[in-house]
Amino acid sequence: MLSRYLDDFKVGEVFRLGGYTFTEGEIIDFALRFDPQPFHLDVAAAGDSIYGGLIASGFQSIAICFRMFIQSGILAQSSMGSPGIDDLRWLAPVRPGDTLHTEVEVVEIKPSRSKPDRGIARLRYSAINQHDETVARFVLNHLLKRRAAAT
Amino acid sequence: MLSRYLDDFKVGEVFRLGGYTFTEGEIIDFALRFDPQPFHLDVAAAGDSIYGGLIASGFQSIAICFRMFIQSGILAQSSMGSPGIDDLRWLAPVRPGDTLHTEVEVVEIKPSRSKPDRGIARLRYSAINQHDETVARFVLNHLLKRRAAAT
Repeated sequence: MLSRYLDDFKVGEVFRLGGYTFTEGEIIDFALRFDPQPFHLDVAAAGDSIYGGLIASGFQSIAICFRMFIQSGILAQSSMGSPGIDDLRWLAPVRPGDTLHTEVEVVEIKPSRSKPDRGIARLRYSAINQHDETVARFVLNHLLKRRAAAT
Repeated sequence: MLSRYLDDFKVGEVFRLGGYTFTEGEIIDFALRFDPQPFHLDVAAAGDSIYGGLIASGFQSIAICFRMFIQSGILAQSSMGSPGIDDLRWLAPVRPGDTLHTEVEVVEIKPSRSKPDRGIARLRYSAINQHDETVARFVLNHLLKRRAAAT
């Protein structure tokens, strides 16, 4: 997959990225720093929760999902950051040993009216586990350079 | 601030949490793990970007913002997780040396119709810097136990 500019994306295109296995250690470490709730931190307490065992913080799932796309290099030349995310949903728990891969679908491309060198690509991220179940999804608005800006 | 159940929150209430100073080291460390883009990782490249210098990953800002509320203990007895986030907006860059504090406003309380022991609290998180500028905000849907579930 080559580096893309705004103009290079087509609505409906889907990128499928490699997997990442969530270990107990990484789940607990992330939770200690960013989401210290018993069902993310404490195996015994998590067993007594509605989840019946330790689950990953939802912030960890989406951060990993995003990272898998960023590290693909597809946006390496064009990314200028992001104004925000819409409709973030956590749909199923992520447990130690689960492997997620990321799918990214191009939802909409909006060249800027005021700045001809850039625009917004709305990309729908899905985190999908080894049972083909979507565990999280969100639409991220990427501010991207247009190809003209590169010349 | 004592631990609260769903029934204990009132729409319009605001909780103001303590501050967190973003250091260059933490910004780069977070970016390396979760958001490896030049303007989060590389001081020289960031200087040449539209931001004119290193900025924190937006995922770091929201994770820290969330953590400040969780560590207050307000949800310690009641939190059952979250189905998702609405309307996440990154409004201004966060730079090394910036201090953010978190404000959390109660937007809506919705007891479950099918499960009398729980419900959803919609809480609007704002990350506010030392110049009183809101740099990020989002509405998180918290699944919380009702007080009846504790007895």
